[in-house]
Amino acid sequence: MNIILLSGGSGKRLWPLSNDIRSKQFIKIFKRADGSYESMIERVYRQIKSVDADAKVTIATSRTQVSSILHLLGNEVNISVEPTRRDTFPAIALATAYLHEKCGVPVDESVVVCPVDPYVDDSYFAALKDLSAQADKGNANLVLMGIEPTFPSEKYGYIIPENSDPVAKVRTFKEKPDMETARGYLKEGALWNGGVFAYKLSYVLNRAHELMDFKDYEDLFHKYDTLKKISFDYAVVEHEPEIEVMRFHGEWKDLGTWNTLTEEMSEPVIGAGVLGENCEKVHIVNELSVPVLAMGLQDVVISASPQGILVSNTDASARIKPYVDKLPDRIMFAEKSWGEYRVLDVDTSSMAVKIVMKPGHHMSYHAHHVREEVWNVLSGSGTAILDGKKIELHPGDSLRIPCGAKHTVSADPADGLVMLELQIGKEISVEDKTKYPME
Amino acid sequence: MNIILLSGGSGKRLWPLSNDIRSKQFIKIFKRADGSYESMIERVYRQIKSVDADAKVTIATSRTQVSSILHLLGNEVNISVEPTRRDTFPAIALATAYLHEKCGVPVDESVVVCPVDPYVDDSYFAALKDLSAQADKGNANLVLMGIEPTFPSEKYGYIIPENSDPVAKVRTFKEKPDMETARGYLKEGALWNGGVFAYKLSYVLNRAHELMDFKDYEDLFHKYDTLKKISFDYAVVEHEPEIEVMRFHGEWKDLGTWNTLTEEMSEPVIGAGVLGENCEKVHIVNELSVPVLAMGLQDVVISASPQGILVSNTDASARIKPYVDKLPDRIMFAEKSWGEYRVLDVDTSSMAVKIVMKPGHHMSYHAHHVREEVWNVLSGSGTAILDGKKIELHPGDSLRIPCGAKHTVSADPADGLVMLELQIGKEISVEDKTKYPME
Repeated sequence: MNIILLSGGSGKRLWPLSNDIRSKQFIKIFKRADGSYESMIERVYRQIKSVDADAKVTIATSRTQVSSILHLLGNEVNISVEPTRRDTFPAIALATAYLHEKCGVPVDESVVVCPVDPYVDDSYFAALKDLSAQADKGNANLVLMGIEPTFPSEKYGYIIPENSDPVAKVRTFKEKPDMETARGYLKEGALWNGGVFAYKLSYVLNRAHELMDFKDYEDLFHKYDTLKKISFDYAVVEHEPEIEVMRFHGEWKDLGTWNTLTEEMSEPVIGAGVLGENCEKVHIVNELSVPVLAMGLQDVVISASPQGILVSNTDASARIKPYVDKLPDRIMFAEKSWGEYRVLDVDTSSMAVKIVMKPGHHMSYHAHHVREEVWNVLSGSGTAILDGKKIELHPGDSLRIPCGAKHTVSADPADGLVMLELQIGKEISVEDKTKYPME
Repeated sequence: MNIILLSGGSGKRLWPLSNDIRSKQFIKIFKRADGSYESMIERVYRQIKSVDADAKVTIATSRTQVSSILHLLGNEVNISVEPTRRDTFPAIALATAYLHEKCGVPVDESVVVCPVDPYVDDSYFAALKDLSAQADKGNANLVLMGIEPTFPSEKYGYIIPENSDPVAKVRTFKEKPDMETARGYLKEGALWNGGVFAYKLSYVLNRAHELMDFKDYEDLFHKYDTLKKISFDYAVVEHEPEIEVMRFHGEWKDLGTWNTLTEEMSEPVIGAGVLGENCEKVHIVNELSVPVLAMGLQDVVISASPQGILVSNTDASARIKPYVDKLPDRIMFAEKSWGEYRVLDVDTSSMAVKIVMKPGHHMSYHAHHVREEVWNVLSGSGTAILDGKKIELHPGDSLRIPCGAKHTVSADPADGLVMLELQIGKEISVEDKTKYPME
């Protein structure tokens, strides 16, 4: 099976564990059998591979998420990078062109498009395989997955099929309804629209060429930021008479907010935390190293990270977005392809950042123009390059990097490298970075 | 007036704002007229001086608090340092001898002894002056302050006076009663015992010589750790027939726990914090730089510091001590005479500590034997001495301090000095420190 996972998300609804770099699908919150934690994207990727070891997975995402994806999934996965955000139609068209031209998938093969973050069991991915097989048959141009509703939800759009067969023609679509209308839909046999569908590559490539002026993948990629923002629903689905829907009745959840996420936590405390007297339905997710102590609370979620601290009634936690929008948006932590960093301290003319580099990985060769930096090795070892000169780094060593000096470091292939980076200057900004090719 | 302020406290009940170094009286939580915050000890000292500008204030405390006291009050105040903890009788005897021999107070002058942390208005300190004047009269060996109870409390001991005159002989003392008994005491005209009393120096010095074998202050100081632990009540008050009590009917509160402290906060949020929807009676005290967001909570106190995060129902917050006892007790921040430090990161073989030094101040000349350190200057400037050699320090400079190397630094008299200290080694401990005289 070919599958495109759409990976987006602003990172506001699961603050402080998510931020503008770490979207919700990258939070390590699901316990593995071995006691370690995995993120939603790792969980979904693992599930796909367990159902179909040969599945060709392509993740369609923005530039800002590439490093996090490489950090979590390594180089096995294909990534279709959107140069800018242009809504789902351009993104799906680009990923489809990528699949054909970069991954060699023939145009008469089908592909399944699916969000990167459904909380489901393996039967869901078996159903995706069936969806793909149904698209292969070519009875319709698009085959949607319709999820059997378990309750009349106001949160989802609905698909009204022509009959209750396992696969049926779609009669019509309905926007998110109110509760009363939702009850009526359920009586009619309506299905939730989870945004999952399959098609033959040729279908979307043809629609793309009709709607956008481009030659091939490279051309589409290069003119991507000139494209109109338009959703796949609006550009394609609404104009397509030949759509089928395939029913799915397994578990399907969208864990997009703290109240839904905590329901699926297998234990009440992740990280350093203590539930004291009279705590009921209290969840702690703490990514700081210092402990959280909760006393006498009911129905509360507490989460702490280098980004901040949330303490919320569980129901109210679904509505944090407007409050988070007003908080400072400096990125305080991120996972990158080469490892991860955390901001430890922000002062008026300095910032301290802890950098943990994976063994054998290296940063880009870059320079800053209005700040100097000092690298201090805490553990592991590595080789820095400073304006073309190699410098070996060991614990206790400091390397001063003047404004404008080109620099990079590679971590020892066995030990990795942990450093404290001090940024010193009046105008410290992530924008102050110029990348260079290695000399 | 001479006054001895007893400064003790374990720092558990107001965790995470207090720790083994910063007791509750050092937390900056009371808003000054200028918008800045002061601690209980600063507030009390300021109040004493406003009532009696000539008051001679001596703080009786343990070695561990000296640096915090100097940090907050500077050198104006006298400090009687207890070499070890030996309960209130040895502490009061030592402070009384200190007052006589080190501060030149004649033995027929009186002194008032008072805890360092009553939450009171200025009239309380005017009453202390009256208490001292009453002791001067010599009608009794001890004059206690008796606080007019505002409700039948189970939290305080009671003083039963012989009559209801402003000053009366004490008939008897009662231990903390149950509610029913407390109601009975109130009908009898009993008073709360706030642990405040006055005496002539000669009285306590004589009792001290009767009960302990010592020549003078220096001798008492040097044999202090051989003294028996015994309270002033048990050693002196219980055996003294000539005790008077003076009534005080102003406001008097003991702000020893989060529930009592938050009642006196003039605003719900101190530090970076946002009260979102439906928050009622929620208090945030946040000493971290990242924000706390509270949503849909009632009667909750949230406090965050480098030590940890407390989220507690307000009533339950009075009972945090046994839970805090089980938390890691590494000191994560402290105020010292020369400035303050905060631990930013603890790793398996390194620790990162931010050090803010006051202008013109310096550390002790010291060495570590199983760790090396690297000092990184973030802002300000200073002069380090490393094994006798002077080294000027400016922003961006790093100084590597090998194991065993003697080192100190003094902060620039104008700019002060802010540094990031990295400690590197397998066994990092506050015990690994040897002080040396300057060469």
